[in-house]
Amino acid sequence: MSNNTRQLALGAMMFFPAGEHISSWRHPRSEAEGLLSFDYYKRIVQTAERGRFDMFFYADELYVWDRFESGVSHSNHIRPEPFTLLSALAAVTSHIGLAATISTTYNDPYHIARKLATLDHFSGGRAAWNIVTSQTDEEARNFGKERHLQHELRYERAKEFVDVTQGLWDSWDEDALLFDKETGFFADKDKLHNLDHEGKHFKVKGPLNVSRPPQGYPVLIQAGASEAGKEVAAATAEVVFAPGGTLAEGQALYADIKGRLAKYGRSPDDLKIMPALMPILGDTEEEAAERLAEVENQTPDRLALDLLSHYIGVDVSGYPLDEPLPFLPEEEGFNQSKSRLQSIRELLINEDLTLIQVAKRVTTKRVFAGTPEQVADYIEAWFTGGAADGFNIAFPYLPGALDDFVEKVVPILQQRGLLRQEYEGTTLREHLGFSKPESRYAKTPETVTPQ
Amino acid sequence: MSNNTRQLALGAMMFFPAGEHISSWRHPRSEAEGLLSFDYYKRIVQTAERGRFDMFFYADELYVWDRFESGVSHSNHIRPEPFTLLSALAAVTSHIGLAATISTTYNDPYHIARKLATLDHFSGGRAAWNIVTSQTDEEARNFGKERHLQHELRYERAKEFVDVTQGLWDSWDEDALLFDKETGFFADKDKLHNLDHEGKHFKVKGPLNVSRPPQGYPVLIQAGASEAGKEVAAATAEVVFAPGGTLAEGQALYADIKGRLAKYGRSPDDLKIMPALMPILGDTEEEAAERLAEVENQTPDRLALDLLSHYIGVDVSGYPLDEPLPFLPEEEGFNQSKSRLQSIRELLINEDLTLIQVAKRVTTKRVFAGTPEQVADYIEAWFTGGAADGFNIAFPYLPGALDDFVEKVVPILQQRGLLRQEYEGTTLREHLGFSKPESRYAKTPETVTPQ
Repeated sequence: MSNNTRQLALGAMMFFPAGEHISSWRHPRSEAEGLLSFDYYKRIVQTAERGRFDMFFYADELYVWDRFESGVSHSNHIRPEPFTLLSALAAVTSHIGLAATISTTYNDPYHIARKLATLDHFSGGRAAWNIVTSQTDEEARNFGKERHLQHELRYERAKEFVDVTQGLWDSWDEDALLFDKETGFFADKDKLHNLDHEGKHFKVKGPLNVSRPPQGYPVLIQAGASEAGKEVAAATAEVVFAPGGTLAEGQALYADIKGRLAKYGRSPDDLKIMPALMPILGDTEEEAAERLAEVENQTPDRLALDLLSHYIGVDVSGYPLDEPLPFLPEEEGFNQSKSRLQSIRELLINEDLTLIQVAKRVTTKRVFAGTPEQVADYIEAWFTGGAADGFNIAFPYLPGALDDFVEKVVPILQQRGLLRQEYEGTTLREHLGFSKPESRYAKTPETVTPQ
Repeated sequence: MSNNTRQLALGAMMFFPAGEHISSWRHPRSEAEGLLSFDYYKRIVQTAERGRFDMFFYADELYVWDRFESGVSHSNHIRPEPFTLLSALAAVTSHIGLAATISTTYNDPYHIARKLATLDHFSGGRAAWNIVTSQTDEEARNFGKERHLQHELRYERAKEFVDVTQGLWDSWDEDALLFDKETGFFADKDKLHNLDHEGKHFKVKGPLNVSRPPQGYPVLIQAGASEAGKEVAAATAEVVFAPGGTLAEGQALYADIKGRLAKYGRSPDDLKIMPALMPILGDTEEEAAERLAEVENQTPDRLALDLLSHYIGVDVSGYPLDEPLPFLPEEEGFNQSKSRLQSIRELLINEDLTLIQVAKRVTTKRVFAGTPEQVADYIEAWFTGGAADGFNIAFPYLPGALDDFVEKVVPILQQRGLLRQEYEGTTLREHLGFSKPESRYAKTPETVTPQ
């Protein structure tokens, strides 16, 4: 495959350890008992590497969803901590990128810069950071606060957080370390930079006590669906994790985000848009449809209704299940995911659904059910149709649905020349076709004027 | 070897990546260039596991020592982040314990509880936490503060931090997870506990989103040399990392700390005292002495003097090198390590040293130079003489000095019946002979009185 061929970017996504779906753990082929066994994750990520995925994309949240009893009883809100997981995975893989979801709202930039830099070193340049701002009051209460930080402040803090982190990654010039045993010079002190950052949200002196990551900066990912999110994505992100939807919606979002890059001095190729997609595979369309129904039926009504209540911030219990949902809150002042609220609003407008139907639909999103050929067609249509540079593939259950995808869909994508047969580079930036960012301290040598 | 034999506990310690000593990286047999390559650490820890060490003990600091130019130029203050390191090491080892040094001053309990719990799960019960409170203003400035937290407040915060962390580890009863796909019950909600902690330093609701660690709690380690430190150690620690010194000093400290346990309802066997020891091995005494001189000579005068200035909080540059140091600050109000200040004071009182001699001596501490037999004798004398339950072995350079220790000293300790030939258990608690702590929610069933 030539280097000039535009390559499909593929992420293997894990939202819950047992799969994308809140009830994935109930699927007959899920292995939810393994959720705190390293071998479970090792098998999954080695399979994704065999499937030549660009990266393993690990979601995260900082709480147990116990707002409703059903959340504890019926859903899986136990998950290993991202760095502890991904770093161990780096030791048992050689090429696949490793993307950690890390909140800028409940962390310190020094710790995160250091952990991502270490992961990037230990993995030989395979680290990525899915930058999130967290979503719930439950998370706030695990970190000394009563309420989640307000939406605009969260994004403001996120921008400053990323800026500080990048500054810390630049602490040491790439040739700063000398290791000169003879003279006793470990480092060239003139190639070490103090950050001395003092901003609205952070005050960080630096320098970082880890040298510059092999990738310069780990790859920055963001899920920028709100207006503020899209703007932060255009300014800083290299991968946008997009919500999916119809092809027309995908094309519109793609054009919108790519169109914002120029004002930040960036080209459209500097950012990859990767929608989420949960393929439900069947050998026939009928089998795929049956499997989709099986997935949808996994979720108890109570859990589906409580999840809807959570997403819209209003308790829907007590309303008739078989009548339409009579209201939704306004986005103004809404402090959870505004884009999810918007997608539920569109569902209510576009389709004539009862309350329980809406609730069930909300649990299975980003779905396409079909044969392996149909799934490959779907991916290709988005990829060639100006709606995606690749996909974050979600799985209705793990590890089985990933096994199936690698066995049945990956070879088709490879035959069509969309996906690599072998990794050509070793870093995630190389897989994605990105160059290594320069340090903020790298200067073009000035021309010396002779006196 | 019988289970009844008292076993020597052994830690393989890494202060700087290249060894214990601030100039270890200069040693001809150091491999300092590997300090951000995972293979370097993998080789070291697999060697320690082959030597049947109880644990790998990884020190940490949260800053680059740039108070003096010499710190950047001549010493190695780059080090990988502990969790990212130890978790990857868990994936390539099977028995050795993995101890992370984590500051309670610049972290959140929820994150630390979660990372340690994940490390404990992924390693099959091999995690330990070396609880430190940090030492310098440099660290404060990387976390939004100007000055390091005052000594008494640091220890107060540390106690509350550990209490919150243990409470979070108890969030899920051990039989709380059901994974019942048939009925849809993932967990028994009555076996999940909210912490609802509100204290002076922390407010944390919980529960933790990781289930109870295999060890109940990871093993708690502390370096309790100050009065406040010893008291916290007696109340909570299971391993005390002691400073070493003479046998008489070791015996006194051992008796002191063990004597404090009863008032916390603990027995002397509930806590292991492990002094630091840096053996310098030679085939003869003369060779060992030569190698010690070689190690001492690695440190440039400038660096040794600046390090002394740092430790005592007073700039000694400008004083004559060949005359005694005329002063030391009082401990009252001193906000770095009081025990280190005290050890320097004792050095000045007990020996007639010039400024440069004191400075050089400060860089090589906890040293015993001798033949492998002599080192084994030293260890045995402390172990049987009421001064130690084991040792944290430090190395003048890595990986060579660890290789030598495992090849030459370990077999002697094994022949004497002091050290295991093979691991008998799989968890660190089992290696150390500790039982698994009960959850704070575990209750003896009450006797029901018939009506």
